[in-house]
Parts: sequence; C-alpha cells; structure tokens
Amino acid sequence: MLILGLDPGLGTTGWGLVRAQGNRLSHVGNGQIRTDAALPLPSRLVALDAALAALIAANAPDEAAVEEVFVNSNPQSTLKLGQARGVVLLAPARAGLPVSEYAARLVKKSLVGVGSASKDQVHAMVARLLPGAVISGADAADALAVAITHAHIGATTRRRAGLA
Amino acid sequence: MLILGLDPGLGTTGWGLVRAQGNRLSHVGNGQIRTDAALPLPSRLVALDAALAALIAANAPDEAAVEEVFVNSNPQSTLKLGQARGVVLLAPARAGLPVSEYAARLVKKSLVGVGSASKDQVHAMVARLLPGAVISGADAADALAVAITHAHIGATTRRRAGLA
Repeated sequence: MLILGLDPGLGTTGWGLVRAQGNRLSHVGNGQIRTDAALPLPSRLVALDAALAALIAANAPDEAAVEEVFVNSNPQSTLKLGQARGVVLLAPARAGLPVSEYAARLVKKSLVGVGSASKDQVHAMVARLLPGAVISGADAADALAVAITHAHIGATTRRRAGLA
Repeated sequence: MLILGLDPGLGTTGWGLVRAQGNRLSHVGNGQIRTDAALPLPSRLVALDAALAALIAANAPDEAAVEEVFVNSNPQSTLKLGQARGVVLLAPARAGLPVSEYAARLVKKSLVGVGSASKDQVHAMVARLLPGAVISGADAADALAVAITHAHIGATTRRRAGLA
C-alpha cells in the first residue's frame, strides 16, 4: 500500500510517500509545495490544488493521511491555515482516496512513543525508519511522519481484523 | 456581467447570481449548498466543491465575489469555516474566474450605507434591489448581497476608469 502523508500550510505544504508492506516501510518520495506569498489567496489555493492533483496523478497513492492542524490563539493564522487545509483535504478525497486525519500528539506517540516528543525526536525517528531518504525539509519530514503513523495504525487495524 | 456571490460555510454555503449592466442589476438565481454533517470532513469538502463546480459550469459567471469570514474567538469554529472557505475560493479560481473578497462591514456599507447595519436591513435591501427574487434563505441573501457589492464597486471602478 502506498500512503501519501500531508502536512498542510498555505506557504508550504509538506508531502511524503511511504510504501507499507505488512510491518515493512520504504521511502518513495517527499517534497514541499510552496505557494507565492505575492499572489492573491485564490491563486495560491489554485496552485496548491494543482500541485497536489499532479502529485496524486503521477504516483497513484492508495490512501492519504493528513496532520491535524494546531489551532493557536491568533484567529487570522487559524483561518489562513484552515483555508489551505481545506484544499489539502479536498485534493486526495476528490481523487477517490480514503483520507485519514491524525492529531500531532498521536503522530509523536506513534513514532517516538510519547505524545510530548520534540520535533527533532520525530524527525530523527523518520530518518531511522526510512534509511537513505533525503528529506526536503521540516514540513516534508512531518508529512512522512503522518504517513508512517497511518501505516502503523493501519497495520494494527488489519492485524486485529485478521487480515495481515 | 454575471456575478456569482458566495457566502462560505461548511454546513451551508449561500450562492447568488446577479447580472449587472451599468447601474442596472437583475436577479438570475440563488440557493444554498448544504453538506451532510454525518459525513467525514473530506467528503463534505468534495460535495461542496462538486456543487460549486456544477453551478459554475451551468451558469458561466464572469466573476466571483466571496464574503470575508468573521473570525470569532473559538479556534475550532474558525478552522472549520476556514476549511470550507478554502474550497469556496478555490472552485471559481480554478475555473478561471477573477475572485474578489469583501469584508462583511463593506457589504453592509455598500447596501445600507452604514457598516454597522443589521442582517435584517441588508436582507431587506437585497429584496428591494432585486425585486421578484425568491430568496432561499439567509445565506443565499448574504451571497446576493456580496454579489451586489461587487457590482457597485465594479461599476464605480469602471466609471473612474472611463469605461462605463
């Protein structure tokens, strides 16, 4: 199963493709989609949507996993992030992929074992679980982390259901 | 010029089509797109996107105008609204329409003359400016109001530029 992990942001959306075969994980690709802050918001959303659609068409992932957004106390930032996140959830769902959402705490717990793990600990674990992967940046690492979380949780669910 | 006004919401998105010829306005249509709260978020966003794409394909508006979201102190509500708004901005922009955004205060000022006008005053003015229009509900009325605002401001801009 090929999993597309996504870490949404209006300026930068991270993506990571991970293949899961039973308990074995392998890195397929990762990157960061940037939108031009000089463009009006609707054009930035179109650029994000087009990049996601091209990524999905080129790689044909089976499922998508999206990190839940941290909502902070600045409503304008939350709104901006929400607008990008709407497009990031839409693109894979429109392509027919099942889309799962994972809270940042669950991603940390799944990778490092504790929900309060630091970003650095999560990124170090991503590098250990996907040896040889050259990671484009922090947002791509977060996207790979959510893809790995989905693989772990999916494998557990399938094992419980007697399908593994 | 045919203007598509949009008032975004995850549960209900209002839309209104207004034809503007110089200073004359005429009502073309209005409605409310509802998404099923029982569905997961990505499926609701797909339903909203598909309904907007069908509306745009069927009516071929020239421009779109979207009401700016009121960001309240509840970050979860703001995030939810933002996600719907991202899709509402994306759909017309992806179809190649210029998309303008108008703050609620500006819509009120444009229709009623004061930025602090009540919703009821705005809706009464929409009914007066578009006689005969049967309005589907409050969100559709808000969408017609933002389309009218865009017509007013567009006409002013064209007049200033000597194009009217």
